[in-house]
Amino acid sequence: MASPTQGQVITCKAAVAYEPNKPLVIEDVQVAPPQAGEVRVKILFTALCHTDHYTWSGKDPEGLFPCILGHEAAGVVESVGEGVTEVQPGDHVIPCYQAKCKECKFCKSGKTNLCGKCSKIDPQAPLDKVCLLGSGVSTGLGAVWNTAKVEAGSIVAVFGLGTVGLAVAEGAKAAGASRIIGIDIDNKKFDVAKNFGVTEFVNPKDHDKPIQQVLVDLTDGGLDYSFECIGNVSVMRAALECCHKGWGTSVIVGVAASGQEIATRPFQLVTGRVWKGTAFGGFKSRTQVPWLVDKYMNKEIKVDEYITHNMNLADINDAFHLLHEGGCLRCVLAMEI
Amino acid sequence: MASPTQGQVITCKAAVAYEPNKPLVIEDVQVAPPQAGEVRVKILFTALCHTDHYTWSGKDPEGLFPCILGHEAAGVVESVGEGVTEVQPGDHVIPCYQAKCKECKFCKSGKTNLCGKCSKIDPQAPLDKVCLLGSGVSTGLGAVWNTAKVEAGSIVAVFGLGTVGLAVAEGAKAAGASRIIGIDIDNKKFDVAKNFGVTEFVNPKDHDKPIQQVLVDLTDGGLDYSFECIGNVSVMRAALECCHKGWGTSVIVGVAASGQEIATRPFQLVTGRVWKGTAFGGFKSRTQVPWLVDKYMNKEIKVDEYITHNMNLADINDAFHLLHEGGCLRCVLAMEI
Ligand SMILES: NC(=O)c1ccc[n+]([C@@H]2O[C@H](COP(=O)([O-])OP(=O)(O)OC[C@H]3O[C@@H](n4cnc5c(N)ncnc54)[C@H](O)[C@@H]3O)[C@@H](O)[C@H]2O)c1
Ligand SMILES: NC(=O)c1ccc[n+]([C@@H]2O[C@H](COP(=O)([O-])OP(=O)(O)OC[C@H]3O[C@@H](n4cnc5c(N)ncnc54)[C@H](O)[C@@H]3O)[C@@H](O)[C@H]2O)c1
Ligand SMILES: [Zn+2]
Ligand SMILES: [Zn+2]
Ligand SMILES: [Zn+2]
Ligand SMILES: [Zn+2]
Repeated sequence: MASPTQGQVITCKAAVAYEPNKPLVIEDVQVAPPQAGEVRVKILFTALCHTDHYTWSGKDPEGLFPCILGHEAAGVVESVGEGVTEVQPGDHVIPCYQAKCKECKFCKSGKTNLCGKCSKIDPQAPLDKVCLLGSGVSTGLGAVWNTAKVEAGSIVAVFGLGTVGLAVAEGAKAAGASRIIGIDIDNKKFDVAKNFGVTEFVNPKDHDKPIQQVLVDLTDGGLDYSFECIGNVSVMRAALECCHKGWGTSVIVGVAASGQEIATRPFQLVTGRVWKGTAFGGFKSRTQVPWLVDKYMNKEIKVDEYITHNMNLADINDAFHLLHEGGCLRCVLAMEI
Repeated sequence: MASPTQGQVITCKAAVAYEPNKPLVIEDVQVAPPQAGEVRVKILFTALCHTDHYTWSGKDPEGLFPCILGHEAAGVVESVGEGVTEVQPGDHVIPCYQAKCKECKFCKSGKTNLCGKCSKIDPQAPLDKVCLLGSGVSTGLGAVWNTAKVEAGSIVAVFGLGTVGLAVAEGAKAAGASRIIGIDIDNKKFDVAKNFGVTEFVNPKDHDKPIQQVLVDLTDGGLDYSFECIGNVSVMRAALECCHKGWGTSVIVGVAASGQEIATRPFQLVTGRVWKGTAFGGFKSRTQVPWLVDKYMNKEIKVDEYITHNMNLADINDAFHLLHEGGCLRCVLAMEI
């Protein structure tokens, strides 16, 4: 089934960031037809996340300007290039998290949302919800299920109770963790966190001792698994050092500012702790995102609960400001204006 | 079978380090009878290793003076305390590596070689050889088999080709590694390393590029497994960073000087590398050292090949100097003088 615009340049609305920290400009952009192996996707919804904010702020060394932000997206295949057989026009897709996949030309250019890898999903799934499975929620669940492989009965710590941290808590609960300790500097996070499986809450600001010591004391020796979902290198260290010697595993999920380094005494690892990290929760997006969408359709995983705001593309600058507020998890933007 | 000295204080010869870096003094020491749960072992042979040298040098924050060095030891149970049923006088044993086990009183005092955990071994095994299974050789083998779990076909890098690094190479060869790249700043190490399974040799001094880049280029993207067997925190970083993104695992085996820290960019872990460490190669000494001794008796693992020198306790000060020479792997000291 060929699209009427097959092979032609099309014009789309996009919010373009011309300079770091400057308001985005909604304007028409020209999108070239897909080349061999490429797919042109009409993005209908995108969720704004802190990674977008980070790129916009100019701190992301890989963020080139001008650029179009938004990587937790969902849309419809508009047309396909030569040789593409896996999807066809009209398919509902969640473009790979690797809107920075660094392989396809579009990702390299940073200029469009097109990407040769799309995960084709259940056409019944509401795109304004499942766009979240393009990054944050999947990352948190996958960090627990694929990267750490948390077993039933484990004691788990989650540092940072934003969307990613809450998804970690949800994943840990599903895996049968016996205790899920949420750590955040914002007390307002606890009420919502309970709904995602967090059983105890610790605010580092309430303690004089280093947070790793607080947690070791609280768990009689340390955590089985810990997850850093903030992007703060000092917290990454604490997350490792609160793990139980002999077997405790810490997973870095947060993305730190460029140039920053993690450090610890090697003794921490020699005595049996393991330090890992995860990108997109270890999911192979093309095959596994549709599986996550199915789990959502079967009510086995939450998605709606992470969406605190809905706006239109025209309001993207306001949406960015919302991200600074503690109450905002994800804001979903509708592209049609 | 009770020992004639059961319940009595005995007098033994020992090489006592009174001060860091000062010659050891051979003298008589009084050893109290074993208390409940404890075992008094007559040490017949001990291998000197760099860890002893490190303690002797005063750099080990846990080394208290005066102390008696030597932890790769083998001996005979002299008498046992109340309630000890696992060993009896006359049994041949290899005291746990955890001559720093921090649990038993003797380990805490740092004053004797006695330890409540002993591994009873095949009485036919030559004690002047299998004493090496008390630490270095077992650590290297276990780092590969237990901690990293290297699979057949893997590409492995070993940083530092002393006894521990050579045992890693031997373990990797037994596990079916397809390439074993040995890295050392001493070219003299290569000839002996070949006998332990090293297939390629890289001297960082021969390259202008950082060693991690040299190795990534040499392996078309990086190592499946790397092992740091030196105790140098910069090398620990290189060993992590030369691993293949997505799955490469680096194991810290070397013991760094106190207060030193390892560091890297979190991106190294987020993109799928895993950072681990090992103490005594992950072997549970009481049950697994006898298994290693049996493997040696069946000629499945080398031990004799690591012994480059044999001396008497009286020569311990000369033996310490030998450790500085590149040609010395392990020097075994006979206790009977
Ligand atoms: N690895 C991946 O593939 C991947 C994918 C998506 C997102 N991320 C990263 O995950 C991180 C979390 O994303 P998010 O959208 O949930 O962010 P968020 O900003 O919504 O949540 C972060 C939370 O951390 C808390 N926090 C901040 N500093 C803290 C401290 N010192 N101690 C304790 N809590 C602290 C904040 O109060 C907030 O609740 C970000 O760094 C993001 O870039 C990684
Ligand atoms: N984790 C444990 O349970 C455990 C047990 C035993 C020993 N160890 C430790 O393992 C380490 C190795 O022990 P060993 O007896 O084999 O030591 P060793 O001194 O015999 O061997 C170290 C080797 O590293 C090489 N080297 C030094 N600096 C280097 C550099 N910058 N780059 C490359 N090569 C370099 C040396 O030339 C030497 O060949 C020590 O730190 C020791 O304390 C750990
Ligand atoms: Zn995101
Ligand atoms: Zn792409
Ligand atoms: Zn040793
Ligand atoms: Zn002990």
